[in-house]
Amino acid sequence: MKVSKFGGTSVASAQQIKKVAAIVKAEPSRKIIVVSAPGKRFDGDVKVTDLLINLSAAALREEPTDTPLEKVVERYAEIADELELGNDIKQVIKTDLLNRLQADKSSPPLFADSIKASGEDNSAKLIAAYLTSIGLNAEYVNPFDAGLFVNGLPERAQALPEAYDRLAELRNKETITVFPGFFGYTKEGVLRTFERGGSDITGSILAASVKAELYENFTDVDCVFVANPRVVANPVEIEQMTYREMRELSYAGFAVLHDEALMPVFKAAVPLCIRNTNNPSAPGTMIVAERDTSLRPVTGISADSGFSTLYVSKYLMNREIGFGRKLLQILEDECISYEHIPSGIDNLSVILRSHQLTADKEQRIVDRVKSELQADDVHIRNDFSMIVLVGEGMNNTKGLTARAANAFARTGVNIEMINQGSSEVSLVFGILKEDEQKILNELYKEFFEPALVH
Amino acid sequence: MKVSKFGGTSVASAQQIKKVAAIVKAEPSRKIIVVSAPGKRFDGDVKVTDLLINLSAAALREEPTDTPLEKVVERYAEIADELELGNDIKQVIKTDLLNRLQADKSSPPLFADSIKASGEDNSAKLIAAYLTSIGLNAEYVNPFDAGLFVNGLPERAQALPEAYDRLAELRNKETITVFPGFFGYTKEGVLRTFERGGSDITGSILAASVKAELYENFTDVDCVFVANPRVVANPVEIEQMTYREMRELSYAGFAVLHDEALMPVFKAAVPLCIRNTNNPSAPGTMIVAERDTSLRPVTGISADSGFSTLYVSKYLMNREIGFGRKLLQILEDECISYEHIPSGIDNLSVILRSHQLTADKEQRIVDRVKSELQADDVHIRNDFSMIVLVGEGMNNTKGLTARAANAFARTGVNIEMINQGSSEVSLVFGILKEDEQKILNELYKEFFEPALVH
Repeated sequence: MKVSKFGGTSVASAQQIKKVAAIVKAEPSRKIIVVSAPGKRFDGDVKVTDLLINLSAAALREEPTDTPLEKVVERYAEIADELELGNDIKQVIKTDLLNRLQADKSSPPLFADSIKASGEDNSAKLIAAYLTSIGLNAEYVNPFDAGLFVNGLPERAQALPEAYDRLAELRNKETITVFPGFFGYTKEGVLRTFERGGSDITGSILAASVKAELYENFTDVDCVFVANPRVVANPVEIEQMTYREMRELSYAGFAVLHDEALMPVFKAAVPLCIRNTNNPSAPGTMIVAERDTSLRPVTGISADSGFSTLYVSKYLMNREIGFGRKLLQILEDECISYEHIPSGIDNLSVILRSHQLTADKEQRIVDRVKSELQADDVHIRNDFSMIVLVGEGMNNTKGLTARAANAFARTGVNIEMINQGSSEVSLVFGILKEDEQKILNELYKEFFEPALVH
Repeated sequence: MKVSKFGGTSVASAQQIKKVAAIVKAEPSRKIIVVSAPGKRFDGDVKVTDLLINLSAAALREEPTDTPLEKVVERYAEIADELELGNDIKQVIKTDLLNRLQADKSSPPLFADSIKASGEDNSAKLIAAYLTSIGLNAEYVNPFDAGLFVNGLPERAQALPEAYDRLAELRNKETITVFPGFFGYTKEGVLRTFERGGSDITGSILAASVKAELYENFTDVDCVFVANPRVVANPVEIEQMTYREMRELSYAGFAVLHDEALMPVFKAAVPLCIRNTNNPSAPGTMIVAERDTSLRPVTGISADSGFSTLYVSKYLMNREIGFGRKLLQILEDECISYEHIPSGIDNLSVILRSHQLTADKEQRIVDRVKSELQADDVHIRNDFSMIVLVGEGMNNTKGLTARAANAFARTGVNIEMINQGSSEVSLVFGILKEDEQKILNELYKEFFEPALVH
């Protein structure tokens, strides 16, 4: 039994939903289908989820909701008409939305969650209706009825352990389950959503619950590439990688899957496949527990820009117990998370994502570090990029750091930071953003074009 | 005007003190002499400071002090006799010690400080007497009279800013000042010691105060070597390095000078020279503000063993603000300082000196990290060494990381950790202790034997 999740672009139009139906029909083992809300059909199009956010905002402001509601209903109606589903399903969806709009608004976040979640919920109803119309034995299943119980964290719900037991019963259904992604319910019946993009999480929870042989995550790319195809021309495809590799690559440029979606299948040892709805014959990228590392020590190179460095120096810092902790406390007070902390004898640097900084925050941080920690020198520098080499074989392949460092030497790109030694499967280099493209291409050549002679 | 400090082995015997006198006599600019207590004359000998620690311990336990006192007095008497100084100086020293033993014992640390400090104080009196006896115009100067005022931190006093102004007056003395190292006085006249080895600090404070042209630190080695001569055969001598390089090298294996001794001369821009009392014709190692980095990007390679790694992994750790801070708080609660914190996406490692750990502490740390931080995996590994490459030219020399990494690749030594990016002048590698000798020799070849062809 396979659990197959289809993302927003895969269910954005009647044409796309027909592709989904063909994929489901092609393999009888595809017994559980998880769907997103209809996404963009073309560049510049608006996702149903965004239409729903506008709708709930208008309702919460007590403004007229006719126009924003009509925009949502129209999207579904257009799909239903093209799929020749008749009027019933359109009426079901409109009634559902009107009911949600009439619900209690005393908690605006809960009200907004319910409106947003209608996107996936009605998408599932519509797709179930279509699969039935073409002769498949499919059935919409509501997350509350199926037992997808979650805790009460707003916009960041997490499945409760008992949810897995209840959802395991989906295994016994004769019909094809069509399940909406993105939300669950508290045991009291209050709807709660996962983080945005959380349909991936629903699919992973279901796959883990029913102990699926495979969790298929259908998107609009053929596979995961070893490097960002917008930077490196025609990069090699990744056929197979481990959960750990996928996780380390998620650092930057490999955002194929929601962060939280890996854990349920990882714990249940269900393999995951990233596939393309628009090209179902492509084998996709398999994510598994273990792989043969002898073929290729490095699996992928990810890169991301937008990093800043907070540099702090103080003579005899290394003898001061609590220095690092106090510094991190100052960042925490400003709600700033960090990525790496390289350190010398009398100095340390904190590498963090620049979007977290404002001019005010920078000033407060520098002032506090100077006065409270009595630092000799404190300053912030911007425009850094991080390059991450990831591979299960890295730790056992001697000379790999030398190969990477030689690639840097060949390009003349200065290494501003190296971080290695906690993860066994990654090696992180900090560079100036302006050098990113040059070094990414050279590292790609070094590790993925072995046929070339340097 | 030069300030010349002579360490424990330089004043351990009459023969050594004669060498000191010859050095002082050789250059009239050597107007301020700072001395330690007599150190070891041979392997297995006992330092006067250790004899004094025994003496104060006996006194504090209200035990008879005759024997431990006699041992101290005998050491000085032997030196005085060989230097043909007569009985006066011996009497001065014995009376001084008897007075100190009769002092108030209500604060045992202050009592012990006073006894310990007599080692340097009486050494200065004796050496002043000897210099006078050979016709030099020398004079013992007491730190209180000269104005070496310190704050009240027990066994870790720090000079007050006004001390520098008062001590500057030593510049105007006609005579050669012989000044005891290791201690000062609070403004209320209470004697306070620096950390052990703190005579270096006294010399540095004096050199900064009088704006000396040079601070000479006489020890029993000709110079600082680029690598530990006990590991690398016949290493190159360092002729010149910067304060920053000296500081980064102090990480491990380069403990020529007390940590705190660099700051006063650094701030006053007084150059420092490490020289050998036993070989005064050797030029020694100069420590200066700036050096020409074109000659050699790397100045030294230091190494030290005895490091442990605390590894912590937790899925989605990188999204948890405060994780690192809480982890460091747990270490701080156990009074543990750390050296480096390499980090991956879902994991981080804290590298610390193993001597700080006990089985109990390890267990408490692992338990608390598991329960309070809900980590997925926590473990401690031991027997790591750190190798530090230091050089002012490192940041501007492209390809240097590649050269170091290639040296690792040639030896087959696995790099367990790399830390680079905060200090501009150092690059730190973590390795297994068993690989230390092999890689030190290879790095030495790479950076200091340019004549050899690899």
